[in-house]
Amino acid sequence: WIIMKREDLQRLERVYSFKDFVTALDFTNKVGALAEKEGHHPAILTEWGKVGVAWWTHAISGLHRNDFIMAARTEEIYKTFV
Amino acid sequence: WIIMKREDLQRLERVYSFKDFVTALDFTNKVGALAEKEGHHPAILTEWGKVGVAWWTHAISGLHRNDFIMAARTEEIYKTFV
Repeated sequence: WIIMKREDLQRLERVYSFKDFVTALDFTNKVGALAEKEGHHPAILTEWGKVGVAWWTHAISGLHRNDFIMAARTEEIYKTFV
Repeated sequence: WIIMKREDLQRLERVYSFKDFVTALDFTNKVGALAEKEGHHPAILTEWGKVGVAWWTHAISGLHRNDFIMAARTEEIYKTFV
């Protein structure tokens, strides 16, 4: 994960690799299910063979402890794919 | 749809609005299913209440007639959401 500053907004971002589009979209859905469950939503960029995930906290326009927790939980989901 | 030039690559892009995250992700999956069926894959950016879709043809690093067809078919999917 790296901290990227986009338009004055700090976000925690990582790109994950997958073997094809369907697997990438499956990962997107699992991260989406986690997001919905926790009521905290990232930006998820799905492409053929890769998914980019960005966490940040809208209310503070930046990073909160919870974003790091969500990033760690995203890692846990990814581990089930490799 | 607008034609955006990103890193010397022309892409056909549009951002769609939705009422929440779950509906946005549902749209992402329907566009993903179309992409997989046609063997032509876009970049899909899913966020709370919005989805950005970008079509382009990797082999020619730009836009092919097929990208415009896929954009039109993406519109058809969106119409089922509004």
